[in-house]
This record gives sequence, C-alpha cells and structure tokens, in this order.
Amino acid sequence: MYADWIAADWGTSNLRLWAIGPEGQVMVERSSADGMGKLTPEGFEPVLVALAGDLLEPGRVTQVLICGMAGARQGWVEAPYTATPCPPASLSPVPVKTRDPRLSVRILPGVCQTDPADVMRGEETQIAGFLAMEPDFDGTLCLPGTHTKWVRVAQGQIRHFRTAMTGEMFALLSTQSVLRHSVHGEAFSDPAFADALEQALSAPDGLLLDLFSIRPSSLLNDTPAEVARARLSGLLIGSELAATRDYWRSMPVVIIGDAGLSARYGAALTRAGASARVSDHPALALNGLIAAHAHLSEDMT
Amino acid sequence: MYADWIAADWGTSNLRLWAIGPEGQVMVERSSADGMGKLTPEGFEPVLVALAGDLLEPGRVTQVLICGMAGARQGWVEAPYTATPCPPASLSPVPVKTRDPRLSVRILPGVCQTDPADVMRGEETQIAGFLAMEPDFDGTLCLPGTHTKWVRVAQGQIRHFRTAMTGEMFALLSTQSVLRHSVHGEAFSDPAFADALEQALSAPDGLLLDLFSIRPSSLLNDTPAEVARARLSGLLIGSELAATRDYWRSMPVVIIGDAGLSARYGAALTRAGASARVSDHPALALNGLIAAHAHLSEDMT
Repeated sequence: MYADWIAADWGTSNLRLWAIGPEGQVMVERSSADGMGKLTPEGFEPVLVALAGDLLEPGRVTQVLICGMAGARQGWVEAPYTATPCPPASLSPVPVKTRDPRLSVRILPGVCQTDPADVMRGEETQIAGFLAMEPDFDGTLCLPGTHTKWVRVAQGQIRHFRTAMTGEMFALLSTQSVLRHSVHGEAFSDPAFADALEQALSAPDGLLLDLFSIRPSSLLNDTPAEVARARLSGLLIGSELAATRDYWRSMPVVIIGDAGLSARYGAALTRAGASARVSDHPALALNGLIAAHAHLSEDMT
Repeated sequence: MYADWIAADWGTSNLRLWAIGPEGQVMVERSSADGMGKLTPEGFEPVLVALAGDLLEPGRVTQVLICGMAGARQGWVEAPYTATPCPPASLSPVPVKTRDPRLSVRILPGVCQTDPADVMRGEETQIAGFLAMEPDFDGTLCLPGTHTKWVRVAQGQIRHFRTAMTGEMFALLSTQSVLRHSVHGEAFSDPAFADALEQALSAPDGLLLDLFSIRPSSLLNDTPAEVARARLSGLLIGSELAATRDYWRSMPVVIIGDAGLSARYGAALTRAGASARVSDHPALALNGLIAAHAHLSEDMT
C-alpha cells in the first residue's frame, strides 16, 4: 500500500517519517540515523528514497512535508526563519528540487525573533501539534532538551521565546569538564536536586562558583556521585528558572518533551511556585506536520 | 655543575624545574610535557631523573621540592590539603620514597577550605612567591586561568578563597558547544567585550539565555566571530565578577598569571569599579618554592 503523503521530522541526529494513508491514518513509521549532521545537501534525497521508496506510488507524485534541521543553512535546502509573532501551523514551506519524479518535497521554516535574537527549528512544529489539541492555550510552553525553549503562546500564535543552553551545558560539564570525576553514573538524588535548585533560584549569580564547588565537595567530603550529579542538574535548572521568571511566574506552563526530563522540569517548576503540568499529548511533531499539511491543502482549494 | 637543590612546579599538563646553585642562583631552567595528567605514580621518578639526572651530584643527596598537581590524589604521592587560614610559604611538605639514592623529594600540600568547599594546588605557591615580594599585602589576589582563584590575603595568610570555572567554561563552549560555529578564530572585539561584561554585571542571572543568544545573533545578524568571541568572554567574566563582588568591591586586587588573560581581567575589574593592578613580579612559582625551601631550612636549624 502506498502513502497518500509523507510526514518527516529531520533533525540533527536522526530522521523519523510517517506514511499517511488516504483516510489520514498513520500507515507506517520509520526512522534512520542519517540526521542532518551527517549529510551534505546531495545526501538527503538518497536517504529519503532508501527509507521510503517503497511507499511511493509509481507514476504519481507524493507530497513529503519535512520539519527540523533539514531546513537549516547547512541542511538540504535553507528554509528561512519566519519572524515572531506567527502561527506555527501555517508557516510557508520551501519547495526542494528532487531528481526522483515521484517526490514533491517541501521543508517547513523555523521561527526567529529579532530582539533578543533567538531561533528555533523543529520545536515550532511540536508547538503546532500541541495547539492542534489545545487551540485556546494561553500560557508558556517549555520544551526541555539540549537547548531548552521557553515559548509564550496565545491566540494560536508564538508570541516570543527564549532559549537556554542548559542541556548542552549539563552534557559538557558532566562528560568533558573537571566535574566529570565527581558526577559519573546515572544515579540521581532528588533531595540534592531540590537543595541545589533552591540555592540557584535564590542566588543565581553565583553559578560559576557553585558549579566548581561540586568538585572540592567530593574531594573533601566524599560527596556521592548521585548527589554531585543532582547538584549539577539543580544548579543549572535553577539558574535557568531564575532567568525565565517572566515565562512561568504568572501564567500556566505546559512541558513538552522526553518523559524523564519533563518530569524533572515539572518538579522544579512546581517547587519554584509555578503552575506547571507535563503534556500528555502523544506524537506532537507528527500532529504538527499533519496540521501544517492540512493548512497547505486548504490553501490550495 | 651540580644543583644545590631543585625546585619543581609539576602541574597537570607539564613540569617545570629549576636547579638552584649554592649561592641561591638559578643555574638551569628546564621543562617537560610529562604533566601529572599523563603519569601513573610509578611514572614520576623516571621523568624527574631523565630531566634532571645530570644535575644530581653522585654520592650526595639533593633536595627536590615540588608544588602542584604531583601532590594530588591521582598524582605521585598525595600531599593532603592544609586548611585555611594558613601561611602559604610554610606548609609542611610530604616526603616521597624514591629508588635513586641521589634524590630526596618532598611535595608541598595544596590548600583547602571547608565552607564553602574549595581547593587549590599550585596557586598557594605562586601566592607565597607574591608574598615574598609584598609581605604586607592586604587585599585580594586574582589568579585567572582554567579555574580562576579569588584569594583573600592578609598578614601573610590565605584567609579564604573561591574558584570560578570561567576558563574551563570558555574553552568548552568555544570548542565543543553549538557556539563554536560563531566564535571561531582568535580575533577579539574590545567594545563587544565591554558591552557583554556590563550586561552580565547588571543581570548575571540571565547567563544561560545570554550565552545561547550568541548563536542566533550570528545566524540572523551575521555578527562577526570576533564580536561573538568577545561576547562569550565578557558574559562569563562579567558573571564571575558579579559572583565575586565581596573579593573586589572594597579592597585592592592584584592579578597574577598569563599576561593576556591578566590584562583582560584588569580591564574588566577597572570597568566594574575595582582598584586592580596586574602583578609585575616575575617567576612567582619559583619564588614561592624558594620561600618554602628557606622556611624548611630554618626549621632544620
């Protein structure tokens, strides 16, 4: 059975795609480790055909709608950013020339903000998926990850947003810095996380000193790695929450993302006094692509 | 000509040693890339003998006094930390057993602080060298580097200190993070440094957002790499200065270390309103070792 159209989330480290049937059902889901980070512009079409060629009906053109880093400057074709404020489900995708006559590929743009300068690429489609489920949401979406996004949403639009490099900082410090000797393993102390969170929330300007202090604590006091690791996470997330108060202090927050990290952000926000919940809507990127595809189809009629 | 005794600064990434003659003159200076980071405990003596064996008089025992990471837990022999407050030139070194009968090796301890937990190893000897030149100094010594030390000194003692991981953070972010695409090269914009410094001093809690913002600035505004690089440095040093105000607001600061980095910290401190100067005393580690050696010789008489 062939796809009516194909939805794809093509990020830096992998590609996920869904074949959508004629009644809108998801027929097939597939993924590949050939993310944007591994490909030159010429490399994208062969990866797509290798992963999805059997879903393309001979003699017919199949629409493929892509979100994510495939549209970055170093991706397949640059899909320039749309500026805030903007409705994330009705961004204008950029057509991509392909050699395979069965393909009609378009890439959705990311979203940018001028002041302060900020960008997202891929998250806007998850937000579109969330708004497909809760179109009247008025508040902040928090998308924790390597680069955590804080996004003010109202009336179906992305109004403004900020990005914190908390996740990337945690990864670098826990694997590459002097702190790696103190925070090894995966064990995690919730009380130590809460302590560090509150310390950073009440005195966020001490971050560069407090982070270092994790190392002498383990040298002098034999602090267990699970305490040191939770402290590192708590100091970083606490510092992030101190910097993003305008996004969570007086409006509802919904957290979107990986379950473990979402739970950690939910606990942190609740402890900080925010009204926060973790989204339980599945498949937000897919649903965002479906919403964007529906909008494009309306435009054509 | 043989050494009367040998002074050595054995750090993580290299070893420097000086042969001191009978009248206290520096006869020879040598260095090796065999730092503590590359050696197991058994590896230290062969490196020392290979570098300095020809300076050791046959049939006589030559004293070797070492400071730095050779005394860390993962070094040659652990020289446990001395707690603050303490006089840095009269710490008790730990003897090391050697096979070569010409050697009598001792390693100076580092300095620790209980609350907040902090440690130094090697810097205390530079401080002893500084105090040998300015014994009445009452103020703060700032030792910028991978882990910048802020040290309150009075009456010949280290009173208390804090460490900021500013240098390591700069190195990680500029070479390993998403920011590396924006801050490449060595060019550096002084006005951009000053702007970022003042931004971080006035709003240090925004660090995790402001750091990320360097990337979209270059994506959206083609910000030159020299501006982005200076911004990264200014945000980090500004955040550090905001966290260390108690060390520089109402007392003189002297900066010790690499000339370029010292000049940058000097400019930052002056801009922040501190009374700061860069030390012009040469060879502080060597002079600290000489002071420690003199103290040991007094003890023996």
